[in-house]
Amino acid sequence: MSSQDGSLVAGPGRCCSAVPFCCSASGHTSNALEPARERAAGPWSSHDQRDAEEADTRLLIAELCKQFYHLGWVTGTGGGVSIRDGHNIYIAPSGVQKERLHPINMFVLDYPSFQPLISPPACSGPLRPSQCTPLFLAAYRIGIDRPGAEVGSVIHTHSPEAVDVTILCELRGEDAFVITHHEMIKGIRRNSGEYHRYQDELVIPIIDNTPQERDLEESLSEAIRRHPEAPAVLVRRHGLYVWGRSWRDAKTQCECLDALFNATIRARLLGCDMRFPPAGSKYLHDRKSTEAGPLRFPEPQQQ
Amino acid sequence: MSSQDGSLVAGPGRCCSAVPFCCSASGHTSNALEPARERAAGPWSSHDQRDAEEADTRLLIAELCKQFYHLGWVTGTGGGVSIRDGHNIYIAPSGVQKERLHPINMFVLDYPSFQPLISPPACSGPLRPSQCTPLFLAAYRIGIDRPGAEVGSVIHTHSPEAVDVTILCELRGEDAFVITHHEMIKGIRRNSGEYHRYQDELVIPIIDNTPQERDLEESLSEAIRRHPEAPAVLVRRHGLYVWGRSWRDAKTQCECLDALFNATIRARLLGCDMRFPPAGSKYLHDRKSTEAGPLRFPEPQQQ
Amino acid sequence: MSSQDGSLVAGPGRCCSAVPFCCSASGHTSNALEPARERAAGPWSSHDQRDAEEADTRLLIAELCKQFYHLGWVTGTGGGVSIRDGHNIYIAPSGVQKERLHPINMFVLDYPSFQPLISPPACSGPLRPSQCTPLFLAAYRIGIDRPGAEVGSVIHTHSPEAVDVTILCELRGEDAFVITHHEMIKGIRRNSGEYHRYQDELVIPIIDNTPQERDLEESLSEAIRRHPEAPAVLVRRHGLYVWGRSWRDAKTQCECLDALFNATIRARLLGCDMRFPPAGSKYLHDRKSTEAGPLRFPEPQQQ
Amino acid sequence: MSSQDGSLVAGPGRCCSAVPFCCSASGHTSNALEPARERAAGPWSSHDQRDAEEADTRLLIAELCKQFYHLGWVTGTGGGVSIRDGHNIYIAPSGVQKERLHPINMFVLDYPSFQPLISPPACSGPLRPSQCTPLFLAAYRIGIDRPGAEVGSVIHTHSPEAVDVTILCELRGEDAFVITHHEMIKGIRRNSGEYHRYQDELVIPIIDNTPQERDLEESLSEAIRRHPEAPAVLVRRHGLYVWGRSWRDAKTQCECLDALFNATIRARLLGCDMRFPPAGSKYLHDRKSTEAGPLRFPEPQQQ
Repeated sequence: MSSQDGSLVAGPGRCCSAVPFCCSASGHTSNALEPARERAAGPWSSHDQRDAEEADTRLLIAELCKQFYHLGWVTGTGGGVSIRDGHNIYIAPSGVQKERLHPINMFVLDYPSFQPLISPPACSGPLRPSQCTPLFLAAYRIGIDRPGAEVGSVIHTHSPEAVDVTILCELRGEDAFVITHHEMIKGIRRNSGEYHRYQDELVIPIIDNTPQERDLEESLSEAIRRHPEAPAVLVRRHGLYVWGRSWRDAKTQCECLDALFNATIRARLLGCDMRFPPAGSKYLHDRKSTEAGPLRFPEPQQQ
Repeated sequence: MSSQDGSLVAGPGRCCSAVPFCCSASGHTSNALEPARERAAGPWSSHDQRDAEEADTRLLIAELCKQFYHLGWVTGTGGGVSIRDGHNIYIAPSGVQKERLHPINMFVLDYPSFQPLISPPACSGPLRPSQCTPLFLAAYRIGIDRPGAEVGSVIHTHSPEAVDVTILCELRGEDAFVITHHEMIKGIRRNSGEYHRYQDELVIPIIDNTPQERDLEESLSEAIRRHPEAPAVLVRRHGLYVWGRSWRDAKTQCECLDALFNATIRARLLGCDMRFPPAGSKYLHDRKSTEAGPLRFPEPQQQ
Repeated sequence: MSSQDGSLVAGPGRCCSAVPFCCSASGHTSNALEPARERAAGPWSSHDQRDAEEADTRLLIAELCKQFYHLGWVTGTGGGVSIRDGHNIYIAPSGVQKERLHPINMFVLDYPSFQPLISPPACSGPLRPSQCTPLFLAAYRIGIDRPGAEVGSVIHTHSPEAVDVTILCELRGEDAFVITHHEMIKGIRRNSGEYHRYQDELVIPIIDNTPQERDLEESLSEAIRRHPEAPAVLVRRHGLYVWGRSWRDAKTQCECLDALFNATIRARLLGCDMRFPPAGSKYLHDRKSTEAGPLRFPEPQQQ
Repeated sequence: MSSQDGSLVAGPGRCCSAVPFCCSASGHTSNALEPARERAAGPWSSHDQRDAEEADTRLLIAELCKQFYHLGWVTGTGGGVSIRDGHNIYIAPSGVQKERLHPINMFVLDYPSFQPLISPPACSGPLRPSQCTPLFLAAYRIGIDRPGAEVGSVIHTHSPEAVDVTILCELRGEDAFVITHHEMIKGIRRNSGEYHRYQDELVIPIIDNTPQERDLEESLSEAIRRHPEAPAVLVRRHGLYVWGRSWRDAKTQCECLDALFNATIRARLLGCDMRFPPAGSKYLHDRKSTEAGPLRFPEPQQQ
């Protein structure tokens, strides 16, 4: 990268100009990324350092998509992963085999303006931005709108367990998933940062599915307003949106929620209702603190 | 590949003459592939380009077989994968360990004449063409017979979930799998190209199994005629045949269907019947459009 | 391997003298394998060829053990794999982490005398022969005792599905697993070579478990005598023994049986009994052929 | 490592001074590990040998964490693995993605003083010692306090099956998991060393979960006192702690217990209670030997 020969010093060539780890070795430079780079240069010591971090984020999304595919969360081209790195929001494309993504396939938006910055190069094939994009942005907006909140990553899965619990709640006429007294609750943070406690009532709102993914935006935003501390929203007969301060937070919460969904279904088959603490538990949840807090238990409604 | 020395310019040697990525480095050329190459040369700029694409298709089938093995879809040597690349139809052999296939193991047929073009070389061992071949061809025929339809890949799985739903339907005396109001329905295209909608009734016909796989051909073709838009057929207590415009379409539909089968079984254990929309759904399916369309709901029949 | 320099021509050194692919590069030769090699030299053109095949068999066992571990069949050091290559029977050791086996860890016995030939070298650690050894040999004996039968590999799993069906049969007071009308039945061969048909009644005998694995030998042999065509025996609350003409046959039958066990359990949860054909099936099994044949359906007994 | 040049002979540089396989090639030496090395030097012939073994242990923990992640045992940053190598206890850090651990991320404590010896280097990021640390140490203490006992590794999982059986026992008002007549029981050793037999009643105590992991220490130690031979403790709606003489023992017991938990749940769905032997079993457990021994069956209690 530091040769004296201009044709070698230059970054990758035309076809993948936006990505520093492109396999192309052509000597043509591209300025497509410059505006973002210039503005973003502040917090980093050099462009090289910035390039390396950007490459890491793109590769990480590809790795997570593959991992989630093998967990059954993003099969059938469904689901998606987005990670924010400073002022850049990276989003995996829509309608692709998620276990076969390449780092150059990502779309990039500016944060906090949400303006499109980079599209995948032509050599990636005809990729479309994720249909989840407006939903991802609705989650990122929490970090902009609320003091103390921060959103650095959003994950969308079609997890079978997530679908199952929306069906279980549907049968009960409830529009929120509720669980208490399970260790994995402790892995879920409120949007204001604090972790839930073992004995807390965790409440994840459920919204109705719509024919078009983008039409979920309004009800998702409404659910976020009504449940300001919930870091996730379930979509009935569809899947889960979950976010966190970093990709690690979002992934951890995604895994914890999936374990909680799974535990709820399995416990029900055994005859146990995980909305209630075990008989004789020393650590009864303080219903008052939950009722007074932002995460109200929605009234059961007859449908 | 572009050496001046004839013995190096030549392709692979005798034992695997049909495949350009053979490990053999012998200098003998083979013309076995020439007729197909010549005719196919039109859309490609050179033989080398064509060779590379053929190698990709063969490798892709081996990779998909391995992936499907680990999903439990092609265990016990069952199931199969076929991909069409222009005028060549590639089909994995029968009765082999699907997670251990090598790209040279594939059979190749001409499209649209369905004449055999290439058998695996002797060094592959005594391989037999897939017993699914007539079924694969029945699906490819859709793309020949119907204006607007196109079939580029056919997949056959022994997925446990597929078997389960045929048993569930058997208990109900139904000869089609029906589901509505599930996000994964949106991943399934009609043969004429349009995607199903979330609120549509997806109907996948079920045919009876037969002692010999080839004997399924008649009832499979009959099911295709009766359900001209369904891109898949279930075989009772056996598995699934599914196809699409490309390998990506076929694989996506295979994954979406498996998720739908799985959701149906799990919902039933919870007490929910996925043939009907959730209570109070805003997006009721327009039964008239379905009834008027080619995908009729088959009358329940007493057996 | 064909250097003029004696120190290079020689095989691996002392610590792993029995295996030609040992990582050691020391120049000392070992004759430990010679007797077996000499006798076995007949059917092979050279020692080098024989070495390569032996290496393949050892590596294959290690690969299959790892694969079966990830299928949940040989966890907790349970289960085992044995492959016969001509006059050598290779058996994985007992009580080891099956996903971490190395090719040099195998024990070798002579066929058909069953005399021990090779133990793993000292550098493998203190390994014990598999506790399944007498059971494996009881299966190999079928190939010796019966004209037309041949056993080239035996697999023992602790598959959860295998345990489940023994419990299901226990609840019904039956000492054999029975299934009919499932595609995977066609992957199971009778010991005399013929494959089962889709509409056949497949019968796998179940024997009681014993505190010591070796104490299963008598009842396993008795089950083999009473069911001369069954290529597998279930052990109650324990697992499965299954064999075949080659490792491919044994593995295929193991996978087909596991799919059949799984289908039986899942069908039962849905309310379907897989011992009977579907209502209205055109392909009713010919009970007479089964009853006259060697695989009799054992009388249900009250316990 | 054996260069004449002092700057190369030296071990890894400052940032990862404690680990011999650090990627850094800087020439600065560090004495951080020296005290432990000196004392531990006795049983090893050289520092180099000791370095290699330490590297193996650290790598092994990273490998096991990754493997357990894919088994669903340590998702959501939950669970943990600890291995003792002579006088060093290695423990994976808390709150990290368990499938992405690097060998340098481990904390090291002295055995038997339990004094902290080594923290991960700054380049690992801000890692915290595992919240399971006091629980791990409570298990290691068994090996110190009791003649004949030895603890070389402790594993903590959030296995869904472990949670399920605590819920099943909760519904029955029992504070111990009990199973008999299952082959996997034979893989579980008593703390005094002897393996359980097939027909034994295996008893694993269950303790209530607490809001803070460290608050489990008292009840875990109490359970260990009341069940002196049980090599594991279940935590209600949380998971499993299990230990063994070596990492192999601990892992084997973890896998066997998980299979037993799974079998119990699946058998229950079929209508079988695994606390009792099968009808007509020849190998009835001798209740007297169990009742007289340290592993008493806890009286069912109404909650």
